[in-house]
Amino acid sequence: MRILGIDPGYAIVGYGIVEYDGFRFDAVAYGAVTTPAKEKFPERLRMIYEDLSFLIKKYQPDHLAIEKLYFNTNTTTAIDVAQARGVILLCATENGIPIFEYTPLQVKQAITGYGRAEKHQVMEMIKSFLSLKAIPKPDDTADALALAVCHGHCTGNLVGKLNSEAKK
Amino acid sequence: MRILGIDPGYAIVGYGIVEYDGFRFDAVAYGAVTTPAKEKFPERLRMIYEDLSFLIKKYQPDHLAIEKLYFNTNTTTAIDVAQARGVILLCATENGIPIFEYTPLQVKQAITGYGRAEKHQVMEMIKSFLSLKAIPKPDDTADALALAVCHGHCTGNLVGKLNSEAKK
Repeated sequence: MRILGIDPGYAIVGYGIVEYDGFRFDAVAYGAVTTPAKEKFPERLRMIYEDLSFLIKKYQPDHLAIEKLYFNTNTTTAIDVAQARGVILLCATENGIPIFEYTPLQVKQAITGYGRAEKHQVMEMIKSFLSLKAIPKPDDTADALALAVCHGHCTGNLVGKLNSEAKK
Repeated sequence: MRILGIDPGYAIVGYGIVEYDGFRFDAVAYGAVTTPAKEKFPERLRMIYEDLSFLIKKYQPDHLAIEKLYFNTNTTTAIDVAQARGVILLCATENGIPIFEYTPLQVKQAITGYGRAEKHQVMEMIKSFLSLKAIPKPDDTADALALAVCHGHCTGNLVGKLNSEAKK
């Protein structure tokens, strides 16, 4: 299964495409879609939509794993992140890709086994799972890979659970 | 000038298309794009995107006037409204339509001359400006028409100001 992880944003959209066979993960491609601050906001949304459409067509992911949003800090930024996230969801749906949402706590839990793990612990685990030489930069990219791996673990667990239930 | 007013939402997106010649307003079309609650959220975004694309292609508006968002109440709903609004902005930008944002206070001010006017006063003014037999339903549609008329007034005022400055 090929999973596209996305850390939503409007200035930086981290992405990570990961292949998971139920046992091991391979990083297929990862990076960040960035939009210049000098552009008008709707134009930045259009850039995100086009770049993401390109990535989806190129890498043909089976599932999208994306961070669930909570608003409790900077409201203006939060509105803009949500607006960008709407465009990302649209793009995935138009391409027929099922969408799965995870909270940061779920991601930490799935990757380190501990919901209150430090960020650098999560990043080290991602580096190790994907056999990378270094932790990917920017953080948004590493977070996107973490979302993809988290989804792989969760789907794997689900498959395992279904298999064990079938045996009963 | 043809103005598309939009009251953003994900269950109901009010729209109103208004023709303004600098003196009088004509309602070209108005209504609401609605999405069923039983559909998955990304599918509802896709419906909004497709219906809005259809309306834009059919009515060819010159400008989009849309409500500016503020979040201070129900956060989950607010996130979803913002996500839908991102899709609406994308749709307008892909069709090359300039976007103008107004707060509810600006709309009331432009239409009644008083930022703290009651909602029904705004609605009565809209009915009168557009020579409608009744106040359009749902409220989202009436709000969308109010946004379009507000933008006409603001653009008209801008043109008037530029003209009077040119005469100095």
